[in-house]
Amino acid sequence: MNTIGNIFRLTSFGESHGSAIGGIIDGVPAGLRIDIDDVQRQLDRRRPGQSDLTTSRDESDKVEFLSGIFEGVTIGTPIGFIVKNSNHRSADYDSLRDIYRPSHADYVYDAKYGRRDHRGGGRSSARETISRVVAGAIARQALSTIGISIKAYTSQVGNIRLDNADSLDFDIIDSNKVRCPNKTKADAMERLIEDVKKDGDTVGCVIDCIVEGCPAGFGEPVFGKLSAELASAMMSINAAKGFEIGDGFDFADKKGSEVADEFVNLNGKIATKSNHSGGIQGGISNGQPITMRVAFKPIATLLRPQPTIDKHGNPSVVNPKGRHDPCVAARAVPIVEAMAAIVIFDAYLRNLSSRIDRG
Amino acid sequence: MNTIGNIFRLTSFGESHGSAIGGIIDGVPAGLRIDIDDVQRQLDRRRPGQSDLTTSRDESDKVEFLSGIFEGVTIGTPIGFIVKNSNHRSADYDSLRDIYRPSHADYVYDAKYGRRDHRGGGRSSARETISRVVAGAIARQALSTIGISIKAYTSQVGNIRLDNADSLDFDIIDSNKVRCPNKTKADAMERLIEDVKKDGDTVGCVIDCIVEGCPAGFGEPVFGKLSAELASAMMSINAAKGFEIGDGFDFADKKGSEVADEFVNLNGKIATKSNHSGGIQGGISNGQPITMRVAFKPIATLLRPQPTIDKHGNPSVVNPKGRHDPCVAARAVPIVEAMAAIVIFDAYLRNLSSRIDRG
Amino acid sequence: MNTIGNIFRLTSFGESHGSAIGGIIDGVPAGLRIDIDDVQRQLDRRRPGQSDLTTSRDESDKVEFLSGIFEGVTIGTPIGFIVKNSNHRSADYDSLRDIYRPSHADYVYDAKYGRRDHRGGGRSSARETISRVVAGAIARQALSTIGISIKAYTSQVGNIRLDNADSLDFDIIDSNKVRCPNKTKADAMERLIEDVKKDGDTVGCVIDCIVEGCPAGFGEPVFGKLSAELASAMMSINAAKGFEIGDGFDFADKKGSEVADEFVNLNGKIATKSNHSGGIQGGISNGQPITMRVAFKPIATLLRPQPTIDKHGNPSVVNPKGRHDPCVAARAVPIVEAMAAIVIFDAYLRNLSSRIDRG
Amino acid sequence: MNTIGNIFRLTSFGESHGSAIGGIIDGVPAGLRIDIDDVQRQLDRRRPGQSDLTTSRDESDKVEFLSGIFEGVTIGTPIGFIVKNSNHRSADYDSLRDIYRPSHADYVYDAKYGRRDHRGGGRSSARETISRVVAGAIARQALSTIGISIKAYTSQVGNIRLDNADSLDFDIIDSNKVRCPNKTKADAMERLIEDVKKDGDTVGCVIDCIVEGCPAGFGEPVFGKLSAELASAMMSINAAKGFEIGDGFDFADKKGSEVADEFVNLNGKIATKSNHSGGIQGGISNGQPITMRVAFKPIATLLRPQPTIDKHGNPSVVNPKGRHDPCVAARAVPIVEAMAAIVIFDAYLRNLSSRIDRG
Repeated sequence: MNTIGNIFRLTSFGESHGSAIGGIIDGVPAGLRIDIDDVQRQLDRRRPGQSDLTTSRDESDKVEFLSGIFEGVTIGTPIGFIVKNSNHRSADYDSLRDIYRPSHADYVYDAKYGRRDHRGGGRSSARETISRVVAGAIARQALSTIGISIKAYTSQVGNIRLDNADSLDFDIIDSNKVRCPNKTKADAMERLIEDVKKDGDTVGCVIDCIVEGCPAGFGEPVFGKLSAELASAMMSINAAKGFEIGDGFDFADKKGSEVADEFVNLNGKIATKSNHSGGIQGGISNGQPITMRVAFKPIATLLRPQPTIDKHGNPSVVNPKGRHDPCVAARAVPIVEAMAAIVIFDAYLRNLSSRIDRG
Repeated sequence: MNTIGNIFRLTSFGESHGSAIGGIIDGVPAGLRIDIDDVQRQLDRRRPGQSDLTTSRDESDKVEFLSGIFEGVTIGTPIGFIVKNSNHRSADYDSLRDIYRPSHADYVYDAKYGRRDHRGGGRSSARETISRVVAGAIARQALSTIGISIKAYTSQVGNIRLDNADSLDFDIIDSNKVRCPNKTKADAMERLIEDVKKDGDTVGCVIDCIVEGCPAGFGEPVFGKLSAELASAMMSINAAKGFEIGDGFDFADKKGSEVADEFVNLNGKIATKSNHSGGIQGGISNGQPITMRVAFKPIATLLRPQPTIDKHGNPSVVNPKGRHDPCVAARAVPIVEAMAAIVIFDAYLRNLSSRIDRG
Repeated sequence: MNTIGNIFRLTSFGESHGSAIGGIIDGVPAGLRIDIDDVQRQLDRRRPGQSDLTTSRDESDKVEFLSGIFEGVTIGTPIGFIVKNSNHRSADYDSLRDIYRPSHADYVYDAKYGRRDHRGGGRSSARETISRVVAGAIARQALSTIGISIKAYTSQVGNIRLDNADSLDFDIIDSNKVRCPNKTKADAMERLIEDVKKDGDTVGCVIDCIVEGCPAGFGEPVFGKLSAELASAMMSINAAKGFEIGDGFDFADKKGSEVADEFVNLNGKIATKSNHSGGIQGGISNGQPITMRVAFKPIATLLRPQPTIDKHGNPSVVNPKGRHDPCVAARAVPIVEAMAAIVIFDAYLRNLSSRIDRG
Repeated sequence: MNTIGNIFRLTSFGESHGSAIGGIIDGVPAGLRIDIDDVQRQLDRRRPGQSDLTTSRDESDKVEFLSGIFEGVTIGTPIGFIVKNSNHRSADYDSLRDIYRPSHADYVYDAKYGRRDHRGGGRSSARETISRVVAGAIARQALSTIGISIKAYTSQVGNIRLDNADSLDFDIIDSNKVRCPNKTKADAMERLIEDVKKDGDTVGCVIDCIVEGCPAGFGEPVFGKLSAELASAMMSINAAKGFEIGDGFDFADKKGSEVADEFVNLNGKIATKSNHSGGIQGGISNGQPITMRVAFKPIATLLRPQPTIDKHGNPSVVNPKGRHDPCVAARAVPIVEAMAAIVIFDAYLRNLSSRIDRG
């Protein structure tokens, strides 16, 4: 289905080359003042064409809110919004009507639905993430009223990765083309992407995300664990292929004694000495920063011919025409932040009913 | 919430030291003959005390079906079941009533609910997975009627891991104590776990899982991607901290040209030459084997004293009494299989309405 | 929430005097050819200003589909749509900003959300039903492919009601101003409404609805009974206050022997001699016509001054300005049909997974 | 599906002649002290065999709670419970294995699922309501902590009905056999039921229900209207065929000026002079008593032979064996109360997130 969330819910629609992309955000509490400029800024961060490292399409991607906000404040009714698809070059895609591009969703859509909108990936296009960023921006504004902030950044592109020795300066994230918080590594990543681009190739990446200020108690045990909800949200992003909380896969090679997060009394507040758990224990936030990582595969659209077959099983060749990212990193950062915001704000709202004496 | 699934749905209940663990499986199509012995066998695979490498509690864990199956066949009504908690040694836990064990869920349950059943982890105990295994066994039986099979195995324990050079013999999985399909590595893993146990320590692991026979078309685009549903299901298992589909985190260091899964016409059937995507593209199964990996942290209960604090913030020490797994690997294998079965069978049922000319 | 349905799901948004009303229809199977003109015709039937008996606003109410339909056929992706609010006379409502109109939702919205869009009823306006009619039209087109048709009509306005002696001619429903299938009664109802209008008053009504061609087996037992889903859908319509299936409240005064629907073998098909049950037994359709009735209260907006209080508790007077229906009957007919279509088509899709040997 | 509710959710299971009936109540806030004796009392009110007017089966119907309550208080985890089916006289039903009883669910279950448990109605038995009463009792206890009370009573049996002239004494409801709050009418109803019983017949009834103390603001606009949720809950009860809020069907014959609920300032509190709306406007509670009515058809099982057909379409006769209610009224009262409690408490929990400044 095209809905995410339990109380705070985004339902989205839209194909890449249809009239518009959009969505409905339901469950937004009334009384939240919305900064629409900020929503647009998040969309701008997601937009392709921000730099030579991302795609060169000029999409204006202006969000229009159609309901749910009255005199600048939410009124408890659903927020409908659209972003028009201004740049229709559908003819670019005529040659792809019957072709199954490698590692793309063309074939599976045909297999599932018996038909598809072949233009620009249709529903499986990364344009779909526009709706996520809009909803995420609203969620983030709501979270800021309760002291919760979210920050994502690129931690790996190809074989260039941040390691423990690297200092992180979150203030520079948006001032480099790959949204990496270490200048040296950012430069190296940019060079790598340029090299990859010259080869008509693409490259994978990892995005890290930190949620700060989240109180203990968010997340529903068993199937609604905060870790499970975050995993689902992140793995639902196009091209996401791996997810970790805290030490993640590194846990496999660790002893329990090495990674036990010892509880301590920190000025009257319960805290942990270390944070291998990544802020989540038993699926519930423990008050420490929530840390997670998302792995993205290289973009499947190469700028070189690729052999494949068409829907009839005949050999064919994909000859993509020129406007695609060589690496999703820069654009994935605001999307990862948006998904984290959606999940955490929903968890906050769900947690309002955890105790009878709360309401 | 304590429910997983959309059409095929498991809702579970039960604390470790309450009267019983159990659940309700809703959405099971009528007409499925249930092999109850097979369900019990899966439960037996999950049970602690199968070997010296797992915990020494003698839990009989017999499943009782209370509804939904009539004369051996499902009738479309919900399947209620319970597994009694026969081994109540609640007094073992009296000393833990107010103590927050490191990396356990004690503190977060208190933070969320203001109270908890402190005996044996209460709801956060691994006993909760009993319900998953029961529902998974039913789902797996249903999947077998449409030619889908699921196999999980241990691929890493501490620094011992399967690599590409290792041959895999799936027939030996259940005949070694760690459920690893390579005898040499299995032996090494067992030795490692014994060493860890002697130290009163625990160790992490990775479980691999393969779904074979899944046709193209399962999974719902956007937020209900098959990869997202699997991620959520796996990350909802106790101690799970990482999840990958296909090449997962290895994608980050790859070029698009290295990992493109080229489509080929294989005897009239559309297939891919390679399977870096892990059988899922655009969130939908593509007919190739679905491959995934789940990382588990080391069990948090050590067999040695651990410093901590109590609920009042006073320093304390955890002195666990002796019956806990040093590694979840062996028991995690049937649980991972169960979660995969639940998700895949639900995806099958959801896919029945993907085309108007299907019904 | 603003979502109805389980597999076939409508999520709607929009305030009366915002930019647009719209929605997202999810779960539409692929391969359904959509007749957009027919959708518009259903909207036109709902529109005010069709006759002197309904409101005199000139709303064009043109639906724009934004996604989910490609080359005239559904592709399995969500159908986004909007209907612009062209006729903004917001200033008409300035005097109502702080006033609680009797039997309107003004007060409860303030009580719930602490604020509201006071213009034209905001979200509680009957304009919200536009989205229902759009989704209902799509559902109805889908149902027609499986031989199911839906017909609603006005059976009572004030003290004028159809009785068993009245002949019904469904062909004349849309050719009279109250959508009543009996010419004599239709004329009487029209006269009554005109009289009521002259008094600046309004009057209640009952709409009957029949679903024909529905096979046995739709509806989910227990909480998802077809009767319960229909009741919920109908009672969610603005001003709906009562709902009946089959003989409804008349059952209270009946003996079991009088209303038993005896099963008979009708040319090899199982049928019932009578249909007191209204086509639903145990919450599941039995193959007979599904018959139901919905009672609507008189529209709360009178064309005469009404005493009330404002949000501060001070006495005030409502002086409505001139454009409101004296009776919802004519416009309620297509809305009732739409809700029935949404529920029945959803029930059809849910029923696809009722048996393991179905898929 | 077998789940009702959004935050406070009951999932139920169980066939009449299976091992047990039961359910899982999820979403119960932690910290609620549970009076188990009170739960049992509600079950006892529902039980057949309370008087000669209800069925003569001796079912003990003792509820066993299996989880979610620790030291007498809810802990936020799901409450699992079972009620064993002690009185298995399955052989009584052998003759009904292939027969479709008139106005029963036998045929539709076969039509939907291809099979059924024919013993005692299986899943469609009124025993299924046990789970509703248990969950309703929990919900009611929670509601009492916020000052909300629920009262239902029989207002009509056959042609005996309460009218405006009848005084109501709620204290006598449980002390007469039909649960009617007027002694004269109660006596008349009892006599009517005895007469009907002598004839081997059954008779329909109407149950009224009042929710008092419900603050303004409960209920979700549009599809989650409180009236729609109540309608769905009530119409999901076995044999329910009609539902009204406030004046219900009587509205059809009323002028707007007759039924406008004028707002007044009652000692600084906003109230209404009249309550035709039944406490709900725009789908949201307005602080007045919520009044509703549910119509039940006569029980379909007569104590006389009835002609019918079997599953092969052959003529047959139903010869029911002797233990069935001639009228559901007495037993329906606690069930209607339970459903109201479930809906209202769920609405309370949902409303906790209606404003950003609430949490």
